[in-house]
Amino acid sequence: MVEIRTPIEVNDAIKHVMEFAKKGEKIYVSLEESHGYFLAEDLISDHPVPPFNRTRYDGFAVRAVDTEKASQEHPVELEVVAEIGAGSVFGKEVGDQEAVRIMTGAEIPPGCDAVVMLEEVTEWKREGKTVIEITRKLDHLENITLKGEDTKKGEVLVKKGTYINPGIMAVLATFGYKKVPVTKKPRVGIISTGSELLPVDAPLEPGKIRDSNAYMLIGQIERAGATPVSLGQFADDFELCYQQIVDALENVDILLTTGGVSVGDYDYIPAILEKLNANVLFNKIRMRPGSVTTVAEVDGKLLFGLSGNPSSCYVGFEIFARPVIRYYHTDKPFLQKIQVALGGEFANSNPFHRFVRGKLHFEEGNVVANPVGLDKPNIVTSLAEANVLILLPGGEIGYHQREKVTAILLDEQSGSTWEDWLNDLEECNL
Amino acid sequence: MVEIRTPIEVNDAIKHVMEFAKKGEKIYVSLEESHGYFLAEDLISDHPVPPFNRTRYDGFAVRAVDTEKASQEHPVELEVVAEIGAGSVFGKEVGDQEAVRIMTGAEIPPGCDAVVMLEEVTEWKREGKTVIEITRKLDHLENITLKGEDTKKGEVLVKKGTYINPGIMAVLATFGYKKVPVTKKPRVGIISTGSELLPVDAPLEPGKIRDSNAYMLIGQIERAGATPVSLGQFADDFELCYQQIVDALENVDILLTTGGVSVGDYDYIPAILEKLNANVLFNKIRMRPGSVTTVAEVDGKLLFGLSGNPSSCYVGFEIFARPVIRYYHTDKPFLQKIQVALGGEFANSNPFHRFVRGKLHFEEGNVVANPVGLDKPNIVTSLAEANVLILLPGGEIGYHQREKVTAILLDEQSGSTWEDWLNDLEECNL
Repeated sequence: MVEIRTPIEVNDAIKHVMEFAKKGEKIYVSLEESHGYFLAEDLISDHPVPPFNRTRYDGFAVRAVDTEKASQEHPVELEVVAEIGAGSVFGKEVGDQEAVRIMTGAEIPPGCDAVVMLEEVTEWKREGKTVIEITRKLDHLENITLKGEDTKKGEVLVKKGTYINPGIMAVLATFGYKKVPVTKKPRVGIISTGSELLPVDAPLEPGKIRDSNAYMLIGQIERAGATPVSLGQFADDFELCYQQIVDALENVDILLTTGGVSVGDYDYIPAILEKLNANVLFNKIRMRPGSVTTVAEVDGKLLFGLSGNPSSCYVGFEIFARPVIRYYHTDKPFLQKIQVALGGEFANSNPFHRFVRGKLHFEEGNVVANPVGLDKPNIVTSLAEANVLILLPGGEIGYHQREKVTAILLDEQSGSTWEDWLNDLEECNL
Repeated sequence: MVEIRTPIEVNDAIKHVMEFAKKGEKIYVSLEESHGYFLAEDLISDHPVPPFNRTRYDGFAVRAVDTEKASQEHPVELEVVAEIGAGSVFGKEVGDQEAVRIMTGAEIPPGCDAVVMLEEVTEWKREGKTVIEITRKLDHLENITLKGEDTKKGEVLVKKGTYINPGIMAVLATFGYKKVPVTKKPRVGIISTGSELLPVDAPLEPGKIRDSNAYMLIGQIERAGATPVSLGQFADDFELCYQQIVDALENVDILLTTGGVSVGDYDYIPAILEKLNANVLFNKIRMRPGSVTTVAEVDGKLLFGLSGNPSSCYVGFEIFARPVIRYYHTDKPFLQKIQVALGGEFANSNPFHRFVRGKLHFEEGNVVANPVGLDKPNIVTSLAEANVLILLPGGEIGYHQREKVTAILLDEQSGSTWEDWLNDLEECNL
């Protein structure tokens, strides 16, 4: 007989799942490999930056007071008493009417308080001495970057949980992080189910299709910040499938299955969950696509039964599995949402909340989200183009061109907190 | 004596560099590893999708004509003559008053032209036969996805040069791409120069700083689509440096140096380029930061002499080196630009074009680019937050809060063509 499932709200479903989300272990990776990981500790400055008063340009360090009367008509002459490169220091105090030739980034010698750029002076030799001529007054501290101007010692520069991009690699290098504390990526297993599935390299057969979800999920898992573990396809036999799940749960942190979650007779997942004595959090959600996403907890590990339908699988992953993966790394595990103008027409209402695949478009300072593909749940090709999910709350109304709606950014790294996500959800009554 | 350099326009500089850009070799990687590569061929559909008429739901395949008179009061009874799972096919023609139980994704049996969902019918056994009761008229093709509805055979689904994201991995799997034709990533070498530089794990010394550019460039090179090759720091001796460059050029496709490009006496790069008999494309550009970026061609290979200053290095890489790297993979190698509202005040004019590090912010459908950090060229920490470069064209005027300006997206993958980039450049007179 047919099991009747009661759909729960998207919001509640996410909350249930997040109750079982875990924090990642801290590990150290080399700075060279750190790109794409997340910081496991605040990045704290161990010294002021710059660590000393520094020249911005190649030029001559001088005492500004010596240039007070300098002009085009009455240039001031200074004697160049030394020449120091970046990384060298001048030990003595620079005296009256003296200058030190200095390279970009070098420490300002004692006594000097301004730098005149190389291009601005005339330089010559006279009686074995090097002399420069300055034709304008220099300001106190001109062309000098002060010690600590960028960063004070002890300052938190980048917060724990931040995605490591090239700029952050530079900051890590500056502060001596040869090894970087990052969160270990969870291992996420993938099992495909469905007797209609062919391996990707098999020729097509009547009634069958190639398994695309498993590969799509590899990409989604990597983008979310985890390590995908391909566990192949389900066997045809119930006991074998059951054993596959048991073995998988021992070897991964999170397990995803695709397919086999409908109410049809051939879908093993519900029966396996029962035999596992799993805590089924939900098996139907008021959303499209992805309404049949099932999530269960087995001994503290989460098993996501994603739909076999490509876009339901895609959306189910992004809304429910991604935040669990991101929570290993950060307290902002939810996708970021922005307000956009709807770039399409959805005149028909739908009682379920819709997550429409879309692509952002910028038009003279405004953000428009255009639906991609035909928005039918089987349209795998439209997933290729999508960089947002357009959120159309369920209810009695349709949505029209240029109406303000929420778009969920799929490629964004900074994320949002539960409170941020909730606020947006309340706005649109999810 | 001081060499006087004439700055060239940003636009012309890019054009010079791109004259020496090369296309990448086609290689094959496994589908599992393809995330983040670029397609080296158009992705063409080798079969229609779906490959057959298919049911959208678990239910019963029927002949719509049999349900014409069905109603709540006068249900129609059909005999269930078979049961087929997804991946199985029903060999015979379905006759009058017959139905076939069918699972999501299964092929519609011959004779049937509609599917009634499992939840909509009542099912029972009578005299050893299974019977269902249908209480409404079904439309012709109801709940059926037609063969080829998603994709026709032979269609170009994704263009050559496209970045492979999770959705594209799904499309590749669907069309049997076990091995994916992608462009080989170029090898990009990095040499740091500057006697002020300490290794990242060394304690600080007077006058010295840790080398941050080399690590930042590793991240930037990976983000651009190439393989970074760390070649360490320059030796102190000119001949050794020269030999380092010669060896490096043999082992990489593109060579980057950081530091050593100013007009100061300790900067070896100009002298090395001379000894190499290099074709120096330019050594000064009308932009800030990054004005002293030097690019030279040696036997068809490009050598980018980036500034030792972190933000000059960062910007010089993104504007000049990144498009060369991306051109290996795609005909849209330039960063994408959008129009934004300026989220800061730049009252002072500057004769040079400015590229200000910024972060995008979305405000009720509008895009604002906020400057990050203090926008001084040495502020390494501001690079960590930046996801755009705000373009402030040089000239006699300043820029004000909320003024419309161009922002260059740093984390965007689709890119733009030379024509797109040029159009924008003309707009702002670069």
